[in-house]
Amino acid sequence: MSRPDPVAWPGGSVDASRRYRLPVRVYYQDTDAGGVVFHAAYLAFLERARTEFLRSIGFDIGRLAAEGVLFALHRLEMEFLRPARLDDALEVTAGIGNLGRTSARFVQTVEWADGSVATRASLSLVCVSATRFRPMGIPEPLRAALESWTLAADAEAGPGGTPGARTDNGVESTG
Amino acid sequence: MSRPDPVAWPGGSVDASRRYRLPVRVYYQDTDAGGVVFHAAYLAFLERARTEFLRSIGFDIGRLAAEGVLFALHRLEMEFLRPARLDDALEVTAGIGNLGRTSARFVQTVEWADGSVATRASLSLVCVSATRFRPMGIPEPLRAALESWTLAADAEAGPGGTPGARTDNGVESTG
Amino acid sequence: MSRPDPVAWPGGSVDASRRYRLPVRVYYQDTDAGGVVFHAAYLAFLERARTEFLRSIGFDIGRLAAEGVLFALHRLEMEFLRPARLDDALEVTAGIGNLGRTSARFVQTVEWADGSVATRASLSLVCVSATRFRPMGIPEPLRAALESWTLAADAEAGPGGTPGARTDNGVESTG
Amino acid sequence: MSRPDPVAWPGGSVDASRRYRLPVRVYYQDTDAGGVVFHAAYLAFLERARTEFLRSIGFDIGRLAAEGVLFALHRLEMEFLRPARLDDALEVTAGIGNLGRTSARFVQTVEWADGSVATRASLSLVCVSATRFRPMGIPEPLRAALESWTLAADAEAGPGGTPGARTDNGVESTG
Repeated sequence: MSRPDPVAWPGGSVDASRRYRLPVRVYYQDTDAGGVVFHAAYLAFLERARTEFLRSIGFDIGRLAAEGVLFALHRLEMEFLRPARLDDALEVTAGIGNLGRTSARFVQTVEWADGSVATRASLSLVCVSATRFRPMGIPEPLRAALESWTLAADAEAGPGGTPGARTDNGVESTG
Repeated sequence: MSRPDPVAWPGGSVDASRRYRLPVRVYYQDTDAGGVVFHAAYLAFLERARTEFLRSIGFDIGRLAAEGVLFALHRLEMEFLRPARLDDALEVTAGIGNLGRTSARFVQTVEWADGSVATRASLSLVCVSATRFRPMGIPEPLRAALESWTLAADAEAGPGGTPGARTDNGVESTG
Repeated sequence: MSRPDPVAWPGGSVDASRRYRLPVRVYYQDTDAGGVVFHAAYLAFLERARTEFLRSIGFDIGRLAAEGVLFALHRLEMEFLRPARLDDALEVTAGIGNLGRTSARFVQTVEWADGSVATRASLSLVCVSATRFRPMGIPEPLRAALESWTLAADAEAGPGGTPGARTDNGVESTG
Repeated sequence: MSRPDPVAWPGGSVDASRRYRLPVRVYYQDTDAGGVVFHAAYLAFLERARTEFLRSIGFDIGRLAAEGVLFALHRLEMEFLRPARLDDALEVTAGIGNLGRTSARFVQTVEWADGSVATRASLSLVCVSATRFRPMGIPEPLRAALESWTLAADAEAGPGGTPGARTDNGVESTG
């Protein structure tokens, strides 16, 4: 079945520290009876920003899937700092922390416009074949594009953090 | 806790037939192992468009909730015409079909940019008090705003439908 | 990849009016900031009961999918009568209302143990080929099994309803 | 609004190493277009098992919430080892790894019946007041009950792991 051309996608941008930023609004569907965003909903926000980041550098997950390439989540570390609530306007960021032959680590946050952080996350994704879910090398043009977007080490903590203090209270310090 | 000012919301628009239109992208989170959008995910798309429609005419669900006013879904009719897939760029429309003292019927679609329709829905929502979930009159400024946005009867079928043929194959014709 | 044998599935039963009943608990994941079950979560409850009903009569959706057979939702009518809340113990029922060559209409409710009804739904599902999503005849052994489970006309309204009054306020009366 | 008595809850059990085990089935709602369980769906599975574990030792999250007590997720580490698929019968385990005055760390897995592990997770939850989301001491009877259920250090890796090798490849070794 042929698909119509996509409409242009609104709202995404790249900030000064090379992080992709996607605006996301909190709806009832994202909240729970505690009155705040349900924790798993943040993972959905993060996926949207990773996908739009990839699109912004020329790679559509739909086309990748059609070519038999998926990214499977392998490891996840996440810190929940301040609860977001119904109708909050958030920005979800995505940057590349590390890049391997078959995997990439994304560094992401969910923030308010003033830079205060709701959650901070580090996600390691592995490139796998769609048919067998076996690790495979990231296809070369994509790998090169991701490499050019890898964050500088001191930019990883994000606008709401203090890079030098990151090992004290950031996601990266846990273990 | 004070909240920062919201960022401006991107992408929504109002079309010639007075329907609000919100762009929505299909991510893995919206799909299922059948390779298409999971049916309940369309309901989440519809909620986003209703919420942004209300915001566009001056009413935020967050402020309404803070004032003790919710809209609870009372009836739902939905027709699934063509499956949307991963990475599809969709538009979700929202218009007011009927307006009562305590309830409003929204007429909504999920469409591609060429006007072909994935799903068509009619949703009756009742205004209830947040504490007891009892029906209450829609607050007057909101009721007046919704009234001014009520769709003309012949506009209800949407850009992908043929208004005159609506009783033959549209959502409204079922029973 | 070979799969271990499934563990026995707990909790389902068939009631006197030939409806399958599956216990479901309400967790935070099912609720929203209104303090009640989010409307789309009921659709997830309904899917679980349909799937376990099919399993209880000998048909696994996993095996059906492996054989290239899916059931796609075509039409949905749903009435929300009383909100369920966090930690409620619910029962989700599933019965066959009508059976066609390529489609089946399920009649379902979400109830409390005392028979009071949270939601009532009627769902028309179409049997489609997994590869092209084209309607196909329901495979014969499954069709025969479903036929033997078709509800008597006067049993359709469910324990919380009054069959004779159903056309006045039930799901079936809409359109 | 008074609630009917809950129906008995089926299927949970406690294993030899004092872990609660809840059977969970994979439905279409839990999967994505990659043909496997969507990563955020595992978090929903984990929440169900934590909640039923608490209930099994005498504490209902509904009653806790009514008393103004919530558990908010503060930190999450998760490892995805092998993808679960549609219709898989899984067991979700929950045990207490550490207990503090205001927080508890849960150690959880999602497994097949043969002990092979889909995901392993460590979640730190903080007891907060429902109104202000401020940390508070875990109410005493609950704290004492949780303490009596704290896992022995060498039991933490779970049936699919090798406790002695845990620092090499398990969730606990990250950072």
